[in-house]
Amino acid sequence: MKLVAGCSLHFEVQDESPLVLMLRPRSGAGQWIISETYDLVPPVPVVEYTDLYGNLCQRMTALPGPFEIHTEATVQTAEDIDVDPGAPLTLVQDLPDDALLFVIPSRYCPSDQPAISKKAMEIVADVTPGYDQAEAIRRWINTNIAYQYGVSDATTSALDTLQHGKGVCRDFTHLGISFCRSLSIPARMVVGYLYDLKPMDLHAWFEAYVGGRWYIFDATQTEPKGNRITVAYGRDAADVAFMTQFGPMTLTRMDVWVRTDDGTDE
Amino acid sequence: MKLVAGCSLHFEVQDESPLVLMLRPRSGAGQWIISETYDLVPPVPVVEYTDLYGNLCQRMTALPGPFEIHTEATVQTAEDIDVDPGAPLTLVQDLPDDALLFVIPSRYCPSDQPAISKKAMEIVADVTPGYDQAEAIRRWINTNIAYQYGVSDATTSALDTLQHGKGVCRDFTHLGISFCRSLSIPARMVVGYLYDLKPMDLHAWFEAYVGGRWYIFDATQTEPKGNRITVAYGRDAADVAFMTQFGPMTLTRMDVWVRTDDGTDE
Amino acid sequence: MKLVAGCSLHFEVQDESPLVLMLRPRSGAGQWIISETYDLVPPVPVVEYTDLYGNLCQRMTALPGPFEIHTEATVQTAEDIDVDPGAPLTLVQDLPDDALLFVIPSRYCPSDQPAISKKAMEIVADVTPGYDQAEAIRRWINTNIAYQYGVSDATTSALDTLQHGKGVCRDFTHLGISFCRSLSIPARMVVGYLYDLKPMDLHAWFEAYVGGRWYIFDATQTEPKGNRITVAYGRDAADVAFMTQFGPMTLTRMDVWVRTDDGTDE
Amino acid sequence: MKLVAGCSLHFEVQDESPLVLMLRPRSGAGQWIISETYDLVPPVPVVEYTDLYGNLCQRMTALPGPFEIHTEATVQTAEDIDVDPGAPLTLVQDLPDDALLFVIPSRYCPSDQPAISKKAMEIVADVTPGYDQAEAIRRWINTNIAYQYGVSDATTSALDTLQHGKGVCRDFTHLGISFCRSLSIPARMVVGYLYDLKPMDLHAWFEAYVGGRWYIFDATQTEPKGNRITVAYGRDAADVAFMTQFGPMTLTRMDVWVRTDDGTDE
Repeated sequence: MKLVAGCSLHFEVQDESPLVLMLRPRSGAGQWIISETYDLVPPVPVVEYTDLYGNLCQRMTALPGPFEIHTEATVQTAEDIDVDPGAPLTLVQDLPDDALLFVIPSRYCPSDQPAISKKAMEIVADVTPGYDQAEAIRRWINTNIAYQYGVSDATTSALDTLQHGKGVCRDFTHLGISFCRSLSIPARMVVGYLYDLKPMDLHAWFEAYVGGRWYIFDATQTEPKGNRITVAYGRDAADVAFMTQFGPMTLTRMDVWVRTDDGTDE
Repeated sequence: MKLVAGCSLHFEVQDESPLVLMLRPRSGAGQWIISETYDLVPPVPVVEYTDLYGNLCQRMTALPGPFEIHTEATVQTAEDIDVDPGAPLTLVQDLPDDALLFVIPSRYCPSDQPAISKKAMEIVADVTPGYDQAEAIRRWINTNIAYQYGVSDATTSALDTLQHGKGVCRDFTHLGISFCRSLSIPARMVVGYLYDLKPMDLHAWFEAYVGGRWYIFDATQTEPKGNRITVAYGRDAADVAFMTQFGPMTLTRMDVWVRTDDGTDE
Repeated sequence: MKLVAGCSLHFEVQDESPLVLMLRPRSGAGQWIISETYDLVPPVPVVEYTDLYGNLCQRMTALPGPFEIHTEATVQTAEDIDVDPGAPLTLVQDLPDDALLFVIPSRYCPSDQPAISKKAMEIVADVTPGYDQAEAIRRWINTNIAYQYGVSDATTSALDTLQHGKGVCRDFTHLGISFCRSLSIPARMVVGYLYDLKPMDLHAWFEAYVGGRWYIFDATQTEPKGNRITVAYGRDAADVAFMTQFGPMTLTRMDVWVRTDDGTDE
Repeated sequence: MKLVAGCSLHFEVQDESPLVLMLRPRSGAGQWIISETYDLVPPVPVVEYTDLYGNLCQRMTALPGPFEIHTEATVQTAEDIDVDPGAPLTLVQDLPDDALLFVIPSRYCPSDQPAISKKAMEIVADVTPGYDQAEAIRRWINTNIAYQYGVSDATTSALDTLQHGKGVCRDFTHLGISFCRSLSIPARMVVGYLYDLKPMDLHAWFEAYVGGRWYIFDATQTEPKGNRITVAYGRDAADVAFMTQFGPMTLTRMDVWVRTDDGTDE
């Protein structure tokens, strides 16, 4: 599908604030960026660099006063995500080197915590190792964790979410990743846009490496859904914050939209 | 200056032809990509990857029949390029690791050929080592090599250009790079757009590492000119071809434009 | 000083166990590997790769039965570590791109936890921003955290250590890193060898980026001490485990040694 | 086989000379570095970095007077190289991104020269595309190019070698690479050690990407021979010079050895 996705951020900047943004999707295997706009009001100098995971990061310093960021991309996306029930576990010895990073614990995915691995073992007790384990995890989260705003914040880890039983897409994702890693299945966080997400917002989901490749899993959805736009990959939200600020500035308004190219279905 | 730069390529494809394109400028220290369009007619699947130098490369396979590529970017550019007469030579032992690559010879810049280093020594005979050497080289080429179409082709090296005394921007650039490297000054090729270039075309120039940083040198111009958009960096034209094709297809038409954002000065 | 440093690991392997080891120091700015031995008994196939941080990682699969790893390196080290009281804070906007990674929280360094930043602010209350802050943090830990075995394990985070007031070099390091990051000072973990460490073991310390470069800080020591051999860098212990195992195997014995080249001072 | 391979370089240094060396093999898929020695007499500070291809490079500055480098490694090597007659051509569209670099021409492998592609077409006229083409090229060179010292130098390209019909391992390799690339088969240069090479010296051969992987081809040998130690990969000799010097120093003596671990068969 040809999608138009974007976001607007409005800030009130109290004092010079260095910022790192990740708001530029890259063309890749599953998506082609047909056109893109990235506008700063007022304009400030920006340097773009690529982080360790290959994400495009934009560095700038916001100046005191109002500051706005407007980005929009027209992207050719895949209608469906690949699913592959029964795909076998990829043994650790067969993982590509660059997948190994995604089996170790990270800030919000403490997969080394006994409570995480204990629960993961329960969830996959009778499940075929591999794709079906990741899917069982995804489904368990979708069924057992309540989607609820206001119960988690930027410091909430998957362990917290497991204990409280509530959270938003970020928390669902952290929990899915943590369960997978505790079973030695590489799992990584993806942030981006999802068509027809309700309510519309920047979104997060995870990918697990099984059957020799990465597959998409979204614990917030009941069914597999395509038409996703990946903006960044990382170990968890620490790596893929859409914005990291280092100074006093307040986000006063944020709008996110994903619509089809012909203007319908916002 | 806010520039709108782009190009259109029209092909007649005889048989399935894999292509690698480098037509997507990246935001960086000297330029900010405000918006961008990259359209393929008819659409074909594309994979984008980053090459060893950090350039964005688009891989695709063109199908038999007519095929068109349209790209355009709106870019905030620097009005002027930095010049720094007297900036000292950076000794080899003080070069950053990633500059070392640019002192060794490459396909079209055979800086190890005695004829190249002999002439370079002549040109810089009484010149202060460093920036002034690169500038003397640039000026010598601008004065002594005739800008002429049709005398060089895709296999022409800097040695050929030195012998024939004629060429286009690609050849001027290769010669400048070769002279610099023969003096142990790192030099790299840049391809991109230059505002107000006459006649308008995709352009090439070089950068030399002196005084602890890279400086822009353009041997096709009499004066330092800013408002450049870098699309790719590399050792020479082998690395930064805007298009590399691996099948039977014919470029039937190519348009390139650079204009100011308000539509003037195409 | 010319040091001979090494370790021997003896395992009893119950079943095929994939392993990733980081036991090979690399020559770098501060150390030159004169000679090195890396022996596996019985020999198994090994693949070496470089992780995201540039560390050399050795992948192998241990087979059932006894398994031993013996590594030793002769290394020219720096007698002293650089200290630079008064070196200013490097502002976030002036950090190199690859240092930004080291200001975000990680598994064992949850610098985003309010308890961490609150304590860090206390410690550096009247201290000049920059080097002196990192040194104040180092000294505070050295003074206030008790060096004690058996109170922490592989899941212990800096927050745990702050609460319990006890730990080993790994915990001291995580706490130092967390405090620094909460002040927007990039900090990274180093694992390696330290001459004259008592009791001898694999060691860990941290580096903080202030005054435009990385400096070494070791909260386990009362005075700055040189003659260190770096084996790996990373965000925290999750990145730089000297061994990550994915199967049932038991470490039955481990020896670590660092001695001068003439055989004294083990 | 367990091999001990090394070299000694003796220099007379007239004035401070920056050097870049590539003399440190890395453990990898086909070889395990059991032990290694790298000694400089007199010792000078060294910085090691990884180049774009992943090779370990040692930077140093030799001081006036005699200077010696002694390196030796004990390496577990593969007895045989893989051969796979009939393995199909990997189409350009199916190549991994990082193989694309090796189809473009380079300094000593001007595969874009019509004389190269014409001859390559002749050689593979009736040969199945893929492995058999690379093998036909290898055999043609082995049969038709005379192995002869003193007819080529550091500026000799594959085109020169094709015209003169003589050369050494470096030239054989450049020619094989050039032929392959002119057929859109990725080919790269390897430098290293070969057991039982006569006369013993640092050696060079090439690898071609066919049938979905890299295969070894050595045009200097009549039969496939294993027990190779790879020191560096690159596009051609410009990338993988075992030593690049930037100052006045003279190599007065060079010894190279490869023997079995038990001391026989030097």
